[in-house]
Amino acid sequence: MTAFKEKAVVLLSGGLDSTTVAAIACSEGYDVFALTFRYGQRHAVELEAAKKVADSLGLTEHLIMDLDLRKIGGSALTDHIDVPKRGEEELPTNEIPITYVPARNTIFLSYALAWAEVLGAWNIFIGVNAVDYSGYPDCRPEFIKSFEEMANLATKAGVTLTRRLKIRTPIIYMGKGDIIKTGLKLGVDYTLTHSCYDPAPDGKACGLCDSCLLRKKGFEEAGVQWIP
Amino acid sequence: MTAFKEKAVVLLSGGLDSTTVAAIACSEGYDVFALTFRYGQRHAVELEAAKKVADSLGLTEHLIMDLDLRKIGGSALTDHIDVPKRGEEELPTNEIPITYVPARNTIFLSYALAWAEVLGAWNIFIGVNAVDYSGYPDCRPEFIKSFEEMANLATKAGVTLTRRLKIRTPIIYMGKGDIIKTGLKLGVDYTLTHSCYDPAPDGKACGLCDSCLLRKKGFEEAGVQWIP
Repeated sequence: MTAFKEKAVVLLSGGLDSTTVAAIACSEGYDVFALTFRYGQRHAVELEAAKKVADSLGLTEHLIMDLDLRKIGGSALTDHIDVPKRGEEELPTNEIPITYVPARNTIFLSYALAWAEVLGAWNIFIGVNAVDYSGYPDCRPEFIKSFEEMANLATKAGVTLTRRLKIRTPIIYMGKGDIIKTGLKLGVDYTLTHSCYDPAPDGKACGLCDSCLLRKKGFEEAGVQWIP
Repeated sequence: MTAFKEKAVVLLSGGLDSTTVAAIACSEGYDVFALTFRYGQRHAVELEAAKKVADSLGLTEHLIMDLDLRKIGGSALTDHIDVPKRGEEELPTNEIPITYVPARNTIFLSYALAWAEVLGAWNIFIGVNAVDYSGYPDCRPEFIKSFEEMANLATKAGVTLTRRLKIRTPIIYMGKGDIIKTGLKLGVDYTLTHSCYDPAPDGKACGLCDSCLLRKKGFEEAGVQWIP
């Protein structure tokens, strides 16, 4: 006899943060429905990573939605704008970089909300991080809290008031090293994940964009060998 | 010399509410960027209506985004579920009908938010209505207010605090008759609009779904001839 498991929707990009979050959701006993977006990103190789991760974690379902955010533009990740390479320079602090995709997390969470409502899931997991992050406004705790408020008014549950939907951000206050250590404890295979914003045609990480630099820093902090 | 006009994003479905709202935005002097979604709705004829409306109002740009909400399902408008026909019965009051599309307005407003940020628009217009409406949770004023709060944390403006983005709902407290009277005063040609959830293959309105019934009631209240 299989015990009843609660469903959760997990936003899965195939990067190390969302992969760790998916592993955390599994470890908490949820039946995990992963949601990935093909949104015109130049690093579409992360979709392949997401598939491998979903497979390796044995997730219940993996839905890939197509959104053409290129029609809206405004970001180096979807537009014909160069991804900045900082190399060994310092990571940015008080600045919103050109890799910011306008309202991306709002759009991603809105789809997750729709799917959660259809599935009857009351938890949506997202791998936002407010410590080692690129300064995106939609990764901040105050944004997540506000989205959760809105989500609880947007759906049927907001009328029937049966139960509150939660936006779960288990790694929001972790440093990159702790994220990796947590994942390793849960058996995550980080060789399957992908972080680079601007990979070579063969999928190889550039090693110089913000995302690569943060990833490298994480492996150093975790005291394990860097997996590019 | 052309005076500088502020930009506004208007969600335009091609129905009578959003068409009236687009006309209101134009009358307030905005440079209107209309956003329409091909989301797998069975009444895709409304896309043609939206194009004609955008054209007749002389809008600056009309962007049609493709979203496959059928992958998510859960509604008679996108799924293989019959649209209810009430005929001459009473319209529903305390019930969320099967034509509700989970989180649809949240998703639509999220795209509008992304586009507004890219365009530098500070006003997003949406034709939600809390009087003669189908009981959808995401048409209620408290939802709109909460989305506006969230939107102001989600974007660059939420960090730089330059100016607040507004979600504008000029017809939210109007009855259907007043909406039509307002539109007629602004020169809206309602023969271009489409409301039916379940049109015949030739685009003809069924006259029996909730949307048709509300439309009919509106023309009666406005004291003008019904345009199906």
